[in-house]
Amino acid sequence: MEQLRRAIEEQGVGIGRDVVKVDMFLNHRIDTGLLFRMGEAWAAEFRGEKPDLVLTVEASGIAMAVAAAHALGDLPVVFAKKSAAVTNNGDMVEAPVYSFTHKQQNMIRIDKRYLPEGSRVLIIDDFLADGEAVRGMMSLCAQRGAEVVGVGIAVEKGFQPGGRKLREAGIHLKSLAVVEEIRDGKIILREED
Amino acid sequence: MEQLRRAIEEQGVGIGRDVVKVDMFLNHRIDTGLLFRMGEAWAAEFRGEKPDLVLTVEASGIAMAVAAAHALGDLPVVFAKKSAAVTNNGDMVEAPVYSFTHKQQNMIRIDKRYLPEGSRVLIIDDFLADGEAVRGMMSLCAQRGAEVVGVGIAVEKGFQPGGRKLREAGIHLKSLAVVEEIRDGKIILREED
Repeated sequence: MEQLRRAIEEQGVGIGRDVVKVDMFLNHRIDTGLLFRMGEAWAAEFRGEKPDLVLTVEASGIAMAVAAAHALGDLPVVFAKKSAAVTNNGDMVEAPVYSFTHKQQNMIRIDKRYLPEGSRVLIIDDFLADGEAVRGMMSLCAQRGAEVVGVGIAVEKGFQPGGRKLREAGIHLKSLAVVEEIRDGKIILREED
Repeated sequence: MEQLRRAIEEQGVGIGRDVVKVDMFLNHRIDTGLLFRMGEAWAAEFRGEKPDLVLTVEASGIAMAVAAAHALGDLPVVFAKKSAAVTNNGDMVEAPVYSFTHKQQNMIRIDKRYLPEGSRVLIIDDFLADGEAVRGMMSLCAQRGAEVVGVGIAVEKGFQPGGRKLREAGIHLKSLAVVEEIRDGKIILREED
């Protein structure tokens, strides 16, 4: 998506070999105009899949999920909550998510009532690297008998395996920008399809 | 705001004397149509204050801040991050926020670059009870020489002192719904102005 690519190239910061900082327009400060155009891009990609619910995980995925849901005709948004501990609460479904960044495993959880059996779920998230968060959300959907009809990502790290694995599994995945590599602090994006 | 009041009366759950559960449409599952109408209500209230930035705190404030910012012409949104520890990072401003619900103090923080001196800040949050989160965000603004031109809240607990203190301090506060009391599990709302 051209506007996101330009924002990454002009404002994004690459650190080391694998850190992509976009917190000046995406996940600390939000460029609201860009956000809603991203929502429209995901809606154009996934409208044909007829999602009836947008799922994300707190915190920085929420803004993007809201923008996508709005562009799809104000679908409901559900955000999974993060917590360190496993609780045995019968009303919740849970899945583990390992964070390579923070070197720790968290649980994500969702109230069963908000992910009804048979839902057609569009997963939206800001980053896709190893794919752990998406895998966790897919597990929540599987536990509830809900169908994942698509996965929309803002920034995919193309040099990590998450995107490849999802595509190989036949998941309808759309990343609005794919980072090919980070070279001398510069973020190199993959050419658009 | 009539639609929010109706959602609270029809779907909200009161627990004990002071817990208001609205997670079925506001802060776990989001009713996106209602969310954007709330954004418009805040925009109508605060447009005249000429805010140039909407500030909230992760996680559940983010959706509401995005809706308000959109209705105000796609203003940037900045969300303060929560963390347990105090760090000495020169690029951040920090403020303590005591949570009566969780009986612990957290720090909220923001990158200085995203809260420029002289900004006209509209603070948006989901709940106002004792006012700790708003007070923390006001402290961040004061530390940066930014002006708080308004505070927009979804649900104010009128039986806790946060709202009264802000009004007494001359803050332009707009709560879209004010809970008067919880009686036998029923949420009693204050009559609208």
